Amino acid sequence: MANNKLVVIGGDAAGMSAASKVRREQPDREIIVFEKSDFTSYSACGIPYFISEKVKTYQELIVRDPDTFRNKYNIDVRTQNLVLSVDTDNKKIKVLNKKTGDEFWESYDQLMIATGGKAFCPDVAGYDSENVFGVTTLKSGINIERYIEEKKPQNAVIVGGGYIGLEMAESLLERGLKVSLINRSEQVMNTLDPDMGALVSEALKGLGVELFLGEGLTGFDVKEGKVTAVLTDKQSIPTDIIILGMGSHPNTDFLEGSKIELGARGAIKVDSQLRTNIPDVWAAGDCTESLHLVSKEHVYIALGTIANKTGLVAGSSIAGEKTVFPGVVGTAVCKICSYEVARTGLLEKQLQKLNIDYVKATIESRTRAHYYPNSKKIVVKLLAEKNSGRLLGGQIIGEEGAAKRIDVLATALTHNLTLQNIIDLDLSYAPPFSPVWDPVQTAARKLISSI
Amino acid sequence: MANNKLVVIGGDAAGMSAASKVRREQPDREIIVFEKSDFTSYSACGIPYFISEKVKTYQELIVRDPDTFRNKYNIDVRTQNLVLSVDTDNKKIKVLNKKTGDEFWESYDQLMIATGGKAFCPDVAGYDSENVFGVTTLKSGINIERYIEEKKPQNAVIVGGGYIGLEMAESLLERGLKVSLINRSEQVMNTLDPDMGALVSEALKGLGVELFLGEGLTGFDVKEGKVTAVLTDKQSIPTDIIILGMGSHPNTDFLEGSKIELGARGAIKVDSQLRTNIPDVWAAGDCTESLHLVSKEHVYIALGTIANKTGLVAGSSIAGEKTVFPGVVGTAVCKICSYEVARTGLLEKQLQKLNIDYVKATIESRTRAHYYPNSKKIVVKLLAEKNSGRLLGGQIIGEEGAAKRIDVLATALTHNLTLQNIIDLDLSYAPPFSPVWDPVQTAARKLISSI
Repeated sequence: MANNKLVVIGGDAAGMSAASKVRREQPDREIIVFEKSDFTSYSACGIPYFISEKVKTYQELIVRDPDTFRNKYNIDVRTQNLVLSVDTDNKKIKVLNKKTGDEFWESYDQLMIATGGKAFCPDVAGYDSENVFGVTTLKSGINIERYIEEKKPQNAVIVGGGYIGLEMAESLLERGLKVSLINRSEQVMNTLDPDMGALVSEALKGLGVELFLGEGLTGFDVKEGKVTAVLTDKQSIPTDIIILGMGSHPNTDFLEGSKIELGARGAIKVDSQLRTNIPDVWAAGDCTESLHLVSKEHVYIALGTIANKTGLVAGSSIAGEKTVFPGVVGTAVCKICSYEVARTGLLEKQLQKLNIDYVKATIESRTRAHYYPNSKKIVVKLLAEKNSGRLLGGQIIGEEGAAKRIDVLATALTHNLTLQNIIDLDLSYAPPFSPVWDPVQTAARKLISSI
Repeated sequence: MANNKLVVIGGDAAGMSAASKVRREQPDREIIVFEKSDFTSYSACGIPYFISEKVKTYQELIVRDPDTFRNKYNIDVRTQNLVLSVDTDNKKIKVLNKKTGDEFWESYDQLMIATGGKAFCPDVAGYDSENVFGVTTLKSGINIERYIEEKKPQNAVIVGGGYIGLEMAESLLERGLKVSLINRSEQVMNTLDPDMGALVSEALKGLGVELFLGEGLTGFDVKEGKVTAVLTDKQSIPTDIIILGMGSHPNTDFLEGSKIELGARGAIKVDSQLRTNIPDVWAAGDCTESLHLVSKEHVYIALGTIANKTGLVAGSSIAGEKTVFPGVVGTAVCKICSYEVARTGLLEKQLQKLNIDYVKATIESRTRAHYYPNSKKIVVKLLAEKNSGRLLGGQIIGEEGAAKRIDVLATALTHNLTLQNIIDLDLSYAPPFSPVWDPVQTAARKLISSI
């Protein structure tokens, strides 16, 4: 085999999915993985639950550690190795061994880039104080947990009302902290329409989170290396710990000067087989852009599901198979205490920008038959194309049993189903699981009258 | 309007869905409903939960009572009126007023038949004893609950291991009875493949149900109008109460001699607009057959979801709209204590009968991320067409959060998705809801290797 040496940059979901897939298909191939941290294949999505102590040890979040990859899969994982640059002309990468401080060049025959994302860092002095934390790496999770354990902070400020911000609100509430959350827009969850985001804001207030909406971070008060207050354009909020949940962006700075083409929000452009524009170079996961199957635009969505799937397809492609990754529809789900929030497809503002003529409806139903114990409220909002009735997006907020219903809508979106198609679906029903008309069908029934 | 007088036979899900739809579209029309019981629009599926006292009063199971239909919807509901025969040549029906004993003929311009199903009754002496109960009507549910309350039976025998049998096992266990269940086949739940049925049998045993599999009912020991023991081909089982869960069949005996054509298992043949073979006569719900979208055969499936949907479409059709009901894929779900069982599509034995070349795979996964508290076991079995990989059926058994995943498979079946399509779906993931690969996708990944 001419192209024998596979080098993978990044040892989490996408990188190790790819490496493992190649190993299964090509048992004798040389595979080297450079990973900047000490960890491989861990669930970053599990970090809030480690911090809340729902998960007792961070080790439980690790699916396979470096030694397992080395010994059981014959994958040469090199931890504490940070890749500094890529030279695709000469098929080599420059690596910093963080343990020794040595820099060296490593050649490759095929290269897989899976460097993931990194938290947005605010452009204000004091962001690097000891009590300011992002939540993107296992290391950051361990640091937060240790800080809470050792310093016993009483008051927390979370900056940003996205998934991470909300999940961290739950975590810190469960650890007994008083939680304030500042959010630049007027509602949390900008992956929802504002009317649905408002329901989440209400739920957060009910849980005891002090919400400061429409307030942007403007600075930090820092004393002796610690932030003592978060400054917004309206006020100063005293705090003992700050969690940054301002979203993430692709970790692709090290590609500056390379010939690898970047697209949406600086993410690596890839085709449906996860090939970059450069021969013998693949990329997958949170460092790449995805094709949105509804808008047909290339978007940046950093999620574990996509990282695992694209990593697998990249591995297939590297191993010479023809599997493709068709794209995403933007499905996501989040739990905040007893509340579940789910979304898929496009938002109203996106449809307006795309000049798509749409209709919308929101219904309230129950997660179980109305008479069944612990039946909970569920709100479903659907967006559909005017005239055709094709589904364009769905948003769900409710309590236990609400969120996973989004999967039917995600399936519908992917295969261009109409509202009538959704009404016609033979969905499951028994009183402990659903009303006789599933809430997503009730929403479709309401909306179909306006197309 | 020439065809002005609509007569509906049967006042539950299908009949009242149709009547209500017609009323919405045609506010001034004369609508008469003949209902043999005292009740309209109740949830028959909720009866086991009334018996278990999860639902405190039977009134909670009633969505709308006759007075509401009369007063609020101007629908002339006549309870305790049993329809005895239909004369389509002269467009009239013969009715028995059970309160007065009078028989009379009622004319119609358009007729909607929604007489539902009735429990199979065993052909053995003593079936009409005071402690032998079916579970198809609200009246039967009220009778069972009253019997338990007044007579305090200690030992129950359930005949039949289908949905009703299993839900009643849960009910009676919760009421503190010792429950035995006899089932003619070697596993319970013949709507599952035997290997999946075996998992349900095991679960039942774990819950304390004494299972007698491969034993058919042969008779009853009756003393003073009460059954004291259930006789099988192997033994005699002493008992205080007997629940019949031997399935149901369409309530169409009264159509004998009429020109209305019957199909699968004596159910009324209907087209996609729920029209029978006779002009101006519609039928919907548990008295009709359905088109199975996977096998393309006409089948008899008695379920509340189908009754509601077909009732609505029949109402549309009667009101002159063009809505159609495309058919079913055989989705069903059932809860037995902490266990959830769901199925959709075809079974192995059905595929064999249809000479469809298929592959199968069964996987075990978790309902949440492996590290998340209360993550439960879930077993998913998929059947797909050899070569094409088109999904043909799915079965799920697990604990909390398992069953509703069947809806993605039901959607996939309806729209001819392949295993690769299922793998590619952008399903929702967060640790409280799912592993990063949803179990249905894990099953598809395993099975795709064998197509």
